[in-house]
Amino acid sequence: GRQGLPEVVYGPGKTAPQITAIVTSLLAANSGPVLVTRVEPETADTVLEAVAADGGRYDAEAQLLAWRPAPAGDFRVVVAAAGTSDWPVAAEAAAVASAAGLDVSRIDDIGVAGIHRTLAAAPRLHAADAVICVAGMEGALASVIGGLVAAPVIAVPTSTGYGASLEGVTALLAMLSACAAGLTVVNIDSGFGAAMAAHRIARTRKASS
Amino acid sequence: GRQGLPEVVYGPGKTAPQITAIVTSLLAANSGPVLVTRVEPETADTVLEAVAADGGRYDAEAQLLAWRPAPAGDFRVVVAAAGTSDWPVAAEAAAVASAAGLDVSRIDDIGVAGIHRTLAAAPRLHAADAVICVAGMEGALASVIGGLVAAPVIAVPTSTGYGASLEGVTALLAMLSACAAGLTVVNIDSGFGAAMAAHRIARTRKASS
Amino acid sequence: GRQGLPEVVYGPGKTAPQITAIVTSLLAANSGPVLVTRVEPETADTVLEAVAADGGRYDAEAQLLAWRPAPAGDFRVVVAAAGTSDWPVAAEAAAVASAAGLDVSRIDDIGVAGIHRTLAAAPRLHAADAVICVAGMEGALASVIGGLVAAPVIAVPTSTGYGASLEGVTALLAMLSACAAGLTVVNIDSGFGAAMAAHRIARTRKASS
Amino acid sequence: GRQGLPEVVYGPGKTAPQITAIVTSLLAANSGPVLVTRVEPETADTVLEAVAADGGRYDAEAQLLAWRPAPAGDFRVVVAAAGTSDWPVAAEAAAVASAAGLDVSRIDDIGVAGIHRTLAAAPRLHAADAVICVAGMEGALASVIGGLVAAPVIAVPTSTGYGASLEGVTALLAMLSACAAGLTVVNIDSGFGAAMAAHRIARTRKASS
Amino acid sequence: GRQGLPEVVYGPGKTAPQITAIVTSLLAANSGPVLVTRVEPETADTVLEAVAADGGRYDAEAQLLAWRPAPAGDFRVVVAAAGTSDWPVAAEAAAVASAAGLDVSRIDDIGVAGIHRTLAAAPRLHAADAVICVAGMEGALASVIGGLVAAPVIAVPTSTGYGASLEGVTALLAMLSACAAGLTVVNIDSGFGAAMAAHRIARTRKASS
Amino acid sequence: GRQGLPEVVYGPGKTAPQITAIVTSLLAANSGPVLVTRVEPETADTVLEAVAADGGRYDAEAQLLAWRPAPAGDFRVVVAAAGTSDWPVAAEAAAVASAAGLDVSRIDDIGVAGIHRTLAAAPRLHAADAVICVAGMEGALASVIGGLVAAPVIAVPTSTGYGASLEGVTALLAMLSACAAGLTVVNIDSGFGAAMAAHRIARTRKASS
Amino acid sequence: GRQGLPEVVYGPGKTAPQITAIVTSLLAANSGPVLVTRVEPETADTVLEAVAADGGRYDAEAQLLAWRPAPAGDFRVVVAAAGTSDWPVAAEAAAVASAAGLDVSRIDDIGVAGIHRTLAAAPRLHAADAVICVAGMEGALASVIGGLVAAPVIAVPTSTGYGASLEGVTALLAMLSACAAGLTVVNIDSGFGAAMAAHRIARTRKASS
Amino acid sequence: GRQGLPEVVYGPGKTAPQITAIVTSLLAANSGPVLVTRVEPETADTVLEAVAADGGRYDAEAQLLAWRPAPAGDFRVVVAAAGTSDWPVAAEAAAVASAAGLDVSRIDDIGVAGIHRTLAAAPRLHAADAVICVAGMEGALASVIGGLVAAPVIAVPTSTGYGASLEGVTALLAMLSACAAGLTVVNIDSGFGAAMAAHRIARTRKASS
Ligand SMILES: Nc1ncnc2c1ncn2[C@@H]1O[C@H](COP(=O)(O)O)[C@@H](O)[C@H]1O
Ligand SMILES: Nc1ncnc2c1ncn2[C@@H]1O[C@H](COP(=O)(O)O)[C@@H](O)[C@H]1O
Ligand SMILES: Nc1ncnc2c1ncn2[C@@H]1O[C@H](COP(=O)(O)O)[C@@H](O)[C@H]1O
Ligand SMILES: Nc1ncnc2c1ncn2[C@@H]1O[C@H](COP(=O)(O)O)[C@@H](O)[C@H]1O
Ligand SMILES: [Mg+2]
Ligand SMILES: [Mg+2]
Ligand SMILES: [Mg+2]
Ligand SMILES: [Mg+2]
Ligand SMILES: [Mg+2]
Ligand SMILES: [Mg+2]
Ligand SMILES: [Mg+2]
Ligand SMILES: [Mg+2]
Repeated sequence: GRQGLPEVVYGPGKTAPQITAIVTSLLAANSGPVLVTRVEPETADTVLEAVAADGGRYDAEAQLLAWRPAPAGDFRVVVAAAGTSDWPVAAEAAAVASAAGLDVSRIDDIGVAGIHRTLAAAPRLHAADAVICVAGMEGALASVIGGLVAAPVIAVPTSTGYGASLEGVTALLAMLSACAAGLTVVNIDSGFGAAMAAHRIARTRKASS
Repeated sequence: GRQGLPEVVYGPGKTAPQITAIVTSLLAANSGPVLVTRVEPETADTVLEAVAADGGRYDAEAQLLAWRPAPAGDFRVVVAAAGTSDWPVAAEAAAVASAAGLDVSRIDDIGVAGIHRTLAAAPRLHAADAVICVAGMEGALASVIGGLVAAPVIAVPTSTGYGASLEGVTALLAMLSACAAGLTVVNIDSGFGAAMAAHRIARTRKASS
Repeated sequence: GRQGLPEVVYGPGKTAPQITAIVTSLLAANSGPVLVTRVEPETADTVLEAVAADGGRYDAEAQLLAWRPAPAGDFRVVVAAAGTSDWPVAAEAAAVASAAGLDVSRIDDIGVAGIHRTLAAAPRLHAADAVICVAGMEGALASVIGGLVAAPVIAVPTSTGYGASLEGVTALLAMLSACAAGLTVVNIDSGFGAAMAAHRIARTRKASS
Repeated sequence: GRQGLPEVVYGPGKTAPQITAIVTSLLAANSGPVLVTRVEPETADTVLEAVAADGGRYDAEAQLLAWRPAPAGDFRVVVAAAGTSDWPVAAEAAAVASAAGLDVSRIDDIGVAGIHRTLAAAPRLHAADAVICVAGMEGALASVIGGLVAAPVIAVPTSTGYGASLEGVTALLAMLSACAAGLTVVNIDSGFGAAMAAHRIARTRKASS
Repeated sequence: GRQGLPEVVYGPGKTAPQITAIVTSLLAANSGPVLVTRVEPETADTVLEAVAADGGRYDAEAQLLAWRPAPAGDFRVVVAAAGTSDWPVAAEAAAVASAAGLDVSRIDDIGVAGIHRTLAAAPRLHAADAVICVAGMEGALASVIGGLVAAPVIAVPTSTGYGASLEGVTALLAMLSACAAGLTVVNIDSGFGAAMAAHRIARTRKASS
Repeated sequence: GRQGLPEVVYGPGKTAPQITAIVTSLLAANSGPVLVTRVEPETADTVLEAVAADGGRYDAEAQLLAWRPAPAGDFRVVVAAAGTSDWPVAAEAAAVASAAGLDVSRIDDIGVAGIHRTLAAAPRLHAADAVICVAGMEGALASVIGGLVAAPVIAVPTSTGYGASLEGVTALLAMLSACAAGLTVVNIDSGFGAAMAAHRIARTRKASS
Repeated sequence: GRQGLPEVVYGPGKTAPQITAIVTSLLAANSGPVLVTRVEPETADTVLEAVAADGGRYDAEAQLLAWRPAPAGDFRVVVAAAGTSDWPVAAEAAAVASAAGLDVSRIDDIGVAGIHRTLAAAPRLHAADAVICVAGMEGALASVIGGLVAAPVIAVPTSTGYGASLEGVTALLAMLSACAAGLTVVNIDSGFGAAMAAHRIARTRKASS
Repeated sequence: GRQGLPEVVYGPGKTAPQITAIVTSLLAANSGPVLVTRVEPETADTVLEAVAADGGRYDAEAQLLAWRPAPAGDFRVVVAAAGTSDWPVAAEAAAVASAAGLDVSRIDDIGVAGIHRTLAAAPRLHAADAVICVAGMEGALASVIGGLVAAPVIAVPTSTGYGASLEGVTALLAMLSACAAGLTVVNIDSGFGAAMAAHRIARTRKASS
């Protein structure tokens, strides 16, 4: 089996009782973090009450339910969001990464249409062990960051924007075809996926020490 | 009728005799520039010999045939290309704009994956009356330039790249959905279209003076 | 930094308090126009009351909030809409261009399926310094106008229509592949983008005088 | 069975002997026209020699082989092509319609980016019993013609153009979503299909008299 | 100008007062039929009361408002629908064609997955001067009918179905690439477009007599 | 492991020595049929000579190399092809199914645009244990056959046709969205896939006896 | 005509009275199972009361109405679902197959991202006469199962997931292009289609015995 | 500036003299590895002779030119390829990663349609610090590997396959929508991109030690 990754349940389409049952069983089966993503506030309340174990918390911006989050380690992840509308996805990335034990900080609104804002963030980006770049209409941000830092950059396209944004598909394709060498991409709006990718990278360091 | 735009013939699919006939008739019908785009070298040679009028020239990089190019005016257009593979399209844009009477200069390889190169070009970009931005894999360049300058920016997506580049469609969509306010876009690989758009803008100034 | 463009906030996804805070800070930071696009009437009311500064106005058809609109200059923009369903986008283009200081007039329902209507508008189109052409099902309008006038033509595809209209993608692609030389295109439904493009062009004239 | 339509064989992918056999058998089986579309010149030569029956002719521009073409009737079809690159498809439409017994004339280069050319053709278009409109980059032509005449208009999108033209798909979709009431469309590059549609319409008149 | 086609207003996106004004003005400007498509029942009630002229009628299945429908002529149109879910579009085609003066009859549920039903309808199809074929999941119906009859066949793809039906795009493309010679196609769900195409064909006969 | 399916190697992209090595090793490792699909004639010749084992055969129409074909069993598969251009794919389906031990017969040119041809084949289709339906431009054929017979129908879309055929994607989607209950589909041009699906079904019968 | 397949009515878009009428008539016309798919609970209640015949049942998870289900035969179908969100489609497949007389069992949550779960199911999969594999985000499951068993595998892509899942299109295409020989695919979310395909296969065995 | 990544030139579209000039200048400008990807053998020969510096090598399978490759470090990367046709892309990934100083090994043909082969590779996969998974028709491989190991997994979709494979787009989308948590993806066929992503991860470890 695969070890070392937190258990994460995908919330949409599951009822509160279904989530409660799954969480209860996961909490019993192992001792690591148990998370549920994309949970509506009302469902979250119901589940928090129904799960016997203590210590569950709900992060409303990230729509994340979490039990037994890992203590913060020394792997620094910066979650950089291009614009306001990219915040919910950035919040999911940050909350999941944090619950998985990474040392997370966020930089918002550094979209490249105002390149001075991006550059102002350069020192913080350089200090990161990995960067999660969240952007929709300004998918270009991933290219710029990929060119600025030599650390792993995980790009998350978002479904913000309209028309030619095609629900995030444009940002996704643009990030994939960008020239910045070694940029990697996860699914549209998948803050969760980016956080887990960062966690896999962080484990690499631990594994080696 | 519409006045003030040069006559431009689209070369592909036309035989040398067809081009010769069209050019000859256009040279007779008016006194402005006559251009033919996307002409292969051999066809160009044949046509240059066959057209009676003097002064025809062929620009091999731009694949452009031109008669009676307009003298350079005082409208400064900078043609900025992201990478090496975008050069042929940039060449077409520059050659057509130049033949139409604009004051053209080029900046190559300022792709955003090396943002310092883009920034190094900022002074020249700021001095332009209009910028034509040519990019494929680094479609992001259009966003960055659009944020840097307040002049009109005309973006030309190119069909370079592979996979997720989708023959230029990705760059096209990314440029259209970018946040930089007031960026406009022409067809994939259409250096010609961008040059004509710049020419229309340049006329605006003349019209007002 | 880039100067000379008005500050424009994208409304969707932002709460009234968020918009209020951003507007307040922008009004303090500079002395030019401050606009917010795509604001619902209720949100607009709340924001107008909450922002301390006077002089904010809401244009319900254009869904635009504006403070300190620029006085009308002498750059004449005609906003031409193909059909009734294209009016909201035309309204956004006109309202933003007007707030940015352009001299705006509108011509509605000149779609090419009744070419006499288009031709009847020719004198007004010829008198324009720039034309913004707004069309969905009749994307063909952009080609016809591009052929009629030598001024800059900025085409805005709209998401009206059904079936093969593909939410505006068809009009977008048709405008880009049209033969009319030097036509430029902005994002689907982006009356805002077209207005800003016209503003960039208008600045060109000022810059030169 | 269906009567009254000529037999038309689709040439691509068939060898000269295969075509010879099919044509021979069709000539024997009925007494009407027998056509083969999209035949390369060399194949055409071979087939013409191999088929025993006399009177076969090859139209190189249309790439059409025809035996026993029908005499011209009194149903007037105008085949209108937008630009030079649309000619081969227009030629197929004209040749097939003619062999099917329609009274065909062609008008070339009436693309709408020069609307005066389109309007100059209006009298000839008005005199037609049906119009076949062939266009690629200027798909807009179908809208304009559909608005000009009350006769049936059959639009043939062509795969000319580049980039956003998407091999004819853009013209196809634009023609389908156009506002001109009652425009119908056939497959990309299918001059054949348009000719057969016109023939079906022509039969309607005969059927009623 | 174009004569002989009824005036048809596209309802969606227009308010009852807007429709009332347009209808009133069209009724005054000419003496032929005036139609409004895709009108919701409540809007229809309001408009019928507000328009001063008598004789307006609303067809709820077809969602059509009509004033001064033309008397039935002798051009027989059969509207054939593949399945139950295609009925609303078939209803629009039939109602518009009828108001335009065609002699309309409908055949429902003749989809080809039960080919005996299609064949049972063959006599009625053969008797038609033109066939309008309405189908979504069973787009194949158009091919079969096109092969059965020699009269004009106008295919209307519908947006019924799910998954691979792609909101009607699959039926549209399948109808266009079908082998049945001379089939023509209108926009997805456009019963209106098909009716107008049939009307254009019917006029051809009149014009010739 | 999985037993009972023949070993089939995909030829494209493999050199003759690579194919020789793989075939040799597969012939040694088991005692059933060994096939290689999509092999060019020259490669086939080279491989046939290089493989030590006897009894290899090359079917040029199907582009199939086969060793140790299974003896024909009593499971009757009919491979029905819509048109001439679908023959190569039908040949691959038939050759693979035959080598896998099925009792195969072919019916060609039964496309639905001539429904009488399809119906003439009904008795042979009814007698089949399974039908493989191969069609491109006439993807409709799958619907009709699915409605005619109660046996398993495996549809193979082909990449024949042009324009709206989209290299087989249209036929693929049309087959999937067709109403005929229980039709299944394999990849575009995959005669091989259909044959293997038929073989799996044939095994079912054996397994039960 | 086609015999041996149950009558299945497609519920969406039909009113309760329409369904009642169709069901009543089908129950009278033959003696086999009569099913209605995708029926909302309220509609189901109304129909069950309105249909005179006894024995109708509603399966809420599968959204299936059924009269006269066939007794379970000896053809064993396993319906394997990759994840929780694929359950409704798996339920439709299982309920329809069961009503058609197959011996159905379900295995849920065997998605390949936890390959041990898939492997744990191998014995049950091997015992099946046919496998229906239902998966959306884990479309990969079909490949793995196709490689594990030699029985017919019918893959049902589901529209679960977000972003790059493209409403099921990604799973659909991935299943079609997978390497597992002889996998067949039905429409997105079509549990019904897969069940009918299994039924056709089961009849094959009966036919032969 | 960004440090620590090797210089990699994209070969396609560049002439031998252009590559020679770029390489020469890069070798002079820094002391790390200089690579050129996607170089045809003849071009490679010419460049190797023309570049003054010694030690250039050409890897024909990977189509990679390399000078001053980095010595192998202790970061273990496994490049796993699903099938034979994925080898060239795997070779590019392996060669670039190796030249960048990673400790690379390859596992070929572990595609999931034969899951035992995938499982047999599990021990080697578990021992890796990062896995690069290269797959086209068997894009499913990425899901399975992502579920097997907790190390970073970088998926490279390839353009192998036909029909529904859509030149690699299907594998790309399937990898992105897969359930395996934390999988990341690079552009289609970009072995280079995956290698650089692995290099960025490897640096993370160094940076921390
Ligand atoms: N490179 C080009 N791309 C697109 N359109 C062009 C190009 N060159 C010329 N044209 C346009 O093509 C039209 C002339 O087409 P044609 O009549 O075929 O020569 C004119 O409208 C030109 O403005
Ligand atoms: N250029 C063409 N484009 C599309 N279909 C054609 C064309 N020429 C002939 N056909 C049709 O192709 C069918 C004949 O196909 P085949 O049996 O392959 O010769 C007939 O239905 C013709 O109507
Ligand atoms: N869930 C379903 N998905 C697709 N087709 C269905 C479904 N349920 C029933 N059908 C088919 O739909 C057709 C009946 O359509 P209708 O005449 O509209 O009831 C029959 O061919 C059924 O086999
Ligand atoms: N195989 C490749 N695929 C994509 N990008 C590449 C490849 N090889 C090199 N590059 C990138 O292409 C850029 C160099 O482009 P150029 O200036 O045209 O040589 C650099 O950013 C490289 O990182
Ligand atoms: Mg953004
Ligand atoms: Mg570029
Ligand atoms: Mg419009
Ligand atoms: Mg054209
Ligand atoms: Mg239907
Ligand atoms: Mg076919
Ligand atoms: Mg799933
Ligand atoms: Mg593969």
